[in-house]
Amino acid sequence: MPIDPQQLLAVAREEAELGRAEGGVPIGAALFDRDGRLLGRGHNRRVQDDDPSLHAETTAFRAAGRRPHYRDTIMVTTLSPCWYCSGLVRQFAIPHLVIGESSTFTGGHPWLAGHGVRVDLLDDPACTALMTEFIRQRPDLWAEDIGEPSTSD
Amino acid sequence: MPIDPQQLLAVAREEAELGRAEGGVPIGAALFDRDGRLLGRGHNRRVQDDDPSLHAETTAFRAAGRRPHYRDTIMVTTLSPCWYCSGLVRQFAIPHLVIGESSTFTGGHPWLAGHGVRVDLLDDPACTALMTEFIRQRPDLWAEDIGEPSTSD
Repeated sequence: MPIDPQQLLAVAREEAELGRAEGGVPIGAALFDRDGRLLGRGHNRRVQDDDPSLHAETTAFRAAGRRPHYRDTIMVTTLSPCWYCSGLVRQFAIPHLVIGESSTFTGGHPWLAGHGVRVDLLDDPACTALMTEFIRQRPDLWAEDIGEPSTSD
Repeated sequence: MPIDPQQLLAVAREEAELGRAEGGVPIGAALFDRDGRLLGRGHNRRVQDDDPSLHAETTAFRAAGRRPHYRDTIMVTTLSPCWYCSGLVRQFAIPHLVIGESSTFTGGHPWLAGHGVRVDLLDDPACTALMTEFIRQRPDLWAEDIGEPSTSD
């Protein structure tokens, strides 16, 4: 049966909603194998763990654990991956990236596509709504998460 | 007093040596502020913590903790940063990168230099010796750390 990117995205979106409920940055991600089997899932934990290194994608990658390589995996994320997470996808040669939306933020996914990664951008309204609301409510936290000086600094 | 990149590198090299002594991937890193004050240090912990997300640079970044931004910091690493760690430097707009060596592995530092990052490449023989010995002894672990299928796979 072919993989349905929307089904994979549903897992990442669930993680993003958990992150929102916890008062964190509402971005979720999950790593699957090429047959759609879940390897690891997670959400941004900057606030929850007071840890700037735990973006959604790195959390999902961590949860998937050590593997000989990742060339048979699919990274799914609710938001276009920032350069940090795009670098993760490139270094570990993850061949397929599913993205909920990139209208609120565009990271490195065009760069990854240029390096041969298959990119499915789903323009998911629920993902966009999550980020739009978050950026409106917590512009300072969002600026911190992507390393930009807050306008209030 | 001007910052001496060699002095900063000594901290990262100490971390790399700790990693070697623990049986891990011998790469170390440290994050400093622009005045040379240490913010965080660490080494690759793939083996020690069974965690593929903890490269030396991400470990040092994590140890430095949450900051409003990182635009006044210096990332120091014993080895040219892989794409994952180069992406970290780019996303968080870390303006200065000090590298022990890039003869055993070249990651994204030329890309970062092209995006305005100051890159000091020190060609440090001790850093090169650490990696040369490690790659000879554990080619499988090295391949895993950078997401390449091992030749024995």
